[in-house]
Amino acid sequence: MDSVINGIDVEALKSFADSAAEDPEKAKAKFAVQTRWTGQTRTVSSVKSYGLLGETYERSFTIEADEPQELLGNNTAPNPQELLMAALNACLSVGYVLNAAMAGVLVRSLEIETRGELDLRGLLALDEEVNPGYDEVHYRVCIDADATTEQLEEIHQAVMRTSPNFSNFSKSIRMVPELVVVGHE
Amino acid sequence: MDSVINGIDVEALKSFADSAAEDPEKAKAKFAVQTRWTGQTRTVSSVKSYGLLGETYERSFTIEADEPQELLGNNTAPNPQELLMAALNACLSVGYVLNAAMAGVLVRSLEIETRGELDLRGLLALDEEVNPGYDEVHYRVCIDADATTEQLEEIHQAVMRTSPNFSNFSKSIRMVPELVVVGHE
Repeated sequence: MDSVINGIDVEALKSFADSAAEDPEKAKAKFAVQTRWTGQTRTVSSVKSYGLLGETYERSFTIEADEPQELLGNNTAPNPQELLMAALNACLSVGYVLNAAMAGVLVRSLEIETRGELDLRGLLALDEEVNPGYDEVHYRVCIDADATTEQLEEIHQAVMRTSPNFSNFSKSIRMVPELVVVGHE
Repeated sequence: MDSVINGIDVEALKSFADSAAEDPEKAKAKFAVQTRWTGQTRTVSSVKSYGLLGETYERSFTIEADEPQELLGNNTAPNPQELLMAALNACLSVGYVLNAAMAGVLVRSLEIETRGELDLRGLLALDEEVNPGYDEVHYRVCIDADATTEQLEEIHQAVMRTSPNFSNFSKSIRMVPELVVVGHE
């Protein structure tokens, strides 16, 4: 079996998994994002570093967000809901491709479409009973791969068990906020 | 009071809230994202439309994602975890600015830093007991605004109650997946 499948270096993946199995500290990945409001509903998020294996790696990306005009923004960038869905889909995609690579399955194409409906009465504080977020999120995965339907169904199940952002959507996360009021004596 | 505060048209916001209170159907916002795998750990997500007030509005944004080289990618874009945090921060930012505008509070600056730690043994299926996602997410909000600390604390609490992505992180979402196997007869 070729060591690179779907662009994934399977030997490197196995070696990473071995070191993580041996020392759980090596499995810890730390992510951080700094976001600055730039007026109206617009923000620019900066990614400057991440941590892995006790090392800090420099990064340099920005992620812009805005709201469409009907939602009081200026429509200069995707909105927070769209970024959230892209984060889910990107993570799921990596999951399918990694699991396929580990199983020796060549993926020819992979597309994921995700949709959800918000009840904005939550955001607008019109009804405390209304969930401001999604009650449910639907996604459809279209995959063309050199595998049986059964193999692909197994990979599909594995992705639901192991994808970080599938878990982040489907489980509750404990939120730990801190408010710093600037400029007050 | 000026009708535009922090770049937010408060009259338009109130009028939107009134119409949503009168007819909950008008409060429904539908979001959708299509994501295509482009090799290795890279994806391109497309935002083509969203729905509000029974109307469909065209959109045209792309959101790229990749993994850093240490995580088997080519480091061409932010990774899914960073997009997820940017989605949270962007949504929270809109929340602070909207709530401040409704309270007549001028925001001079707003920055949010978010961080979280993943245990990659979840992703790697090394231990079924390990959560592949975040157990907890920490965020720090630094705000400079024309308000008392008590007013800002009230806004801070309101954002936690009403922000869609705060809810999406802190509550579990029912996931409804569909697998379509392409190219099989």
